[in-house]
Amino acid sequence: MHYFLTDVPERTQKPRDKGFTMAMDKGLSVRQAEDFVNVCGEYVDIVKLGWATSYVTPNLDAKLNVYREAGIPFYFGGTLFEAFIVRDQFDDYRKVLDKYEMPFAEVSDGSIELDHDKKCEYITKLSEQVTVLSEVGSKDAEKIIPPYKWIELMQKELDAGAWKVIGEARESGNVGLFRSTGEVRSGLVQEILTKIPFEKIIWEAPQKAQQVYFIKLMGSNVNLGNIAPEEVIPLETLRLGLRGDTFDHFLGQKG
Amino acid sequence: MHYFLTDVPERTQKPRDKGFTMAMDKGLSVRQAEDFVNVCGEYVDIVKLGWATSYVTPNLDAKLNVYREAGIPFYFGGTLFEAFIVRDQFDDYRKVLDKYEMPFAEVSDGSIELDHDKKCEYITKLSEQVTVLSEVGSKDAEKIIPPYKWIELMQKELDAGAWKVIGEARESGNVGLFRSTGEVRSGLVQEILTKIPFEKIIWEAPQKAQQVYFIKLMGSNVNLGNIAPEEVIPLETLRLGLRGDTFDHFLGQKG
Amino acid sequence: MHYFLTDVPERTQKPRDKGFTMAMDKGLSVRQAEDFVNVCGEYVDIVKLGWATSYVTPNLDAKLNVYREAGIPFYFGGTLFEAFIVRDQFDDYRKVLDKYEMPFAEVSDGSIELDHDKKCEYITKLSEQVTVLSEVGSKDAEKIIPPYKWIELMQKELDAGAWKVIGEARESGNVGLFRSTGEVRSGLVQEILTKIPFEKIIWEAPQKAQQVYFIKLMGSNVNLGNIAPEEVIPLETLRLGLRGDTFDHFLGQKG
Repeated sequence: MHYFLTDVPERTQKPRDKGFTMAMDKGLSVRQAEDFVNVCGEYVDIVKLGWATSYVTPNLDAKLNVYREAGIPFYFGGTLFEAFIVRDQFDDYRKVLDKYEMPFAEVSDGSIELDHDKKCEYITKLSEQVTVLSEVGSKDAEKIIPPYKWIELMQKELDAGAWKVIGEARESGNVGLFRSTGEVRSGLVQEILTKIPFEKIIWEAPQKAQQVYFIKLMGSNVNLGNIAPEEVIPLETLRLGLRGDTFDHFLGQKG
Repeated sequence: MHYFLTDVPERTQKPRDKGFTMAMDKGLSVRQAEDFVNVCGEYVDIVKLGWATSYVTPNLDAKLNVYREAGIPFYFGGTLFEAFIVRDQFDDYRKVLDKYEMPFAEVSDGSIELDHDKKCEYITKLSEQVTVLSEVGSKDAEKIIPPYKWIELMQKELDAGAWKVIGEARESGNVGLFRSTGEVRSGLVQEILTKIPFEKIIWEAPQKAQQVYFIKLMGSNVNLGNIAPEEVIPLETLRLGLRGDTFDHFLGQKG
Repeated sequence: MHYFLTDVPERTQKPRDKGFTMAMDKGLSVRQAEDFVNVCGEYVDIVKLGWATSYVTPNLDAKLNVYREAGIPFYFGGTLFEAFIVRDQFDDYRKVLDKYEMPFAEVSDGSIELDHDKKCEYITKLSEQVTVLSEVGSKDAEKIIPPYKWIELMQKELDAGAWKVIGEARESGNVGLFRSTGEVRSGLVQEILTKIPFEKIIWEAPQKAQQVYFIKLMGSNVNLGNIAPEEVIPLETLRLGLRGDTFDHFLGQKG
């Protein structure tokens, strides 16, 4: 903060349990990762190496060191977990997590059919090794999960050992929590919030209108994910009521 | 220019009064700002630090030095001015402008209600300290200002001391001058041009189709704003008739 | 590859005749080009300097050296060829190709009317000097070329000396091969494939859904073009069935 403004909403500080921002790296170079942590390091709580991009990026070790030195934890996207599972290579996946000293891992079933008890077993097993984020919701726009089921799945995954659960949206923000147009399934979101504590959920919200929706509903310190690196600063201004979209919202609260 | 082409439209040179490009920096790192001025320095007339992003970017001093050394002036987005005004901190804002030796400032009312005489007073006061850009148009898509009113507001703000007036569009290009689809309110634009000299207006036009519209209507040397850093080179080719969208337009004029 | 997954589709290796990725540089800085080749060098077969952006970028020599040292060939976008042709400066264009030691050139008629025999003459002449890519399809969304005509044009251009032919889509992916919504003209694509060998065609496919369409239709090793630098890694995961969109497709083939 280079100058003082009164009545700016208070933000949580690192390490954050709420007000958490998960950013998505889908192939940054080492230098781009350095630029990213230099500008956004204070605001980014965790970096996801999007889906299985880590399989093809040649700079994995060097880049993880950039995040490590910046004190920002990281994890492989859930699609990589699924790629190992569908090939019956779970033990190999555990070794990969060790090899790269990954502090977190995601357990998801966005692209595969996975019996839910089995999914919870994976969560339990992996949580002996790393901190687990589990994800609910399909990447298939046709698969609509009703709200009571989202709640049941989320609760079981938390019980199985997940640190937080993620609401699926993809990089594009048009499945899972959202309609194909990107519009929020707001009835779903609000019903989930009647049962699951809001700090236990990370809402994937890559589009600005989606971020605005969650901030207006739950305040500055909602947990948001799948934020593109260049959108972390803009998101932070939304959280603080310092962009047109949320400017009025927080002023109203001041009065 | 690395090779010669005949009959390319003539562009104004810096310092430009018309043919002006205002680019938006919404959180570049120092290195990204260096890359930007290295490639685009010749074509960018002024950089806006988008809305209140400067409140959260940690590298403000170092980045302003990059622009300063490249001879490119800069200013804080109007939302920052409004954030100070709505908090009754106008004097603090003047001190911030001094502290960072800002050569320009924007006076706007896109997110707040501001009596127009009062807005003009701010323009007059700030123009004693810096060069003022004032902005007309709301960030609220619901607030439609009729054309005669746009003209009246623009003229009064110029009379109050604004160097140029900006037509509002936001980063996304879907309010103010544009419909929610991004389509130009062309009747509005053309009516404005019957009364306000075209070099006194900077049209925010973040989308390519919007840039093409203004270039076709007013020629290569129209003033355009809210250009993303990576779109400055593409915009320059549009101005020169060297991209498909305006290729024919300038050829027609040659004949 | 930092870890081993079984049953990943096999990709061709450089120098590729198929499975070719053409990326579009529309104004990268030298440092951005370095970052790009560091991360994507293995996957990018050729770089197009988009349309006539090379006319305005100040760093042309230095940037071409980055690509040269990375062993990645490059060429000027077809619009630059057309800008020379429409000005009756073909000889000048040949000199520019020599001056910059361009290994490839594109012959297109996306923005100009060009008699097809004349276009083929240009292909033949330039192929004495460089490797020629020729492009079929208009940048004008109103100009619909029927499938039999696409085939005839492509065949004649290959016969005239083009190494491969490119199906037009622009940077945005909404003309030529695609409807204005970005949807693939799939009847057109499939009819072309009955007559022209698939390795002779580079399909411009800037949008993810378009890339997915071609990969599902023709496999991992389809030739794709107009890929934005930051989408090269994501595209590579699509080719390997390691992203949600193509995850199932390749698994099905395993079984």
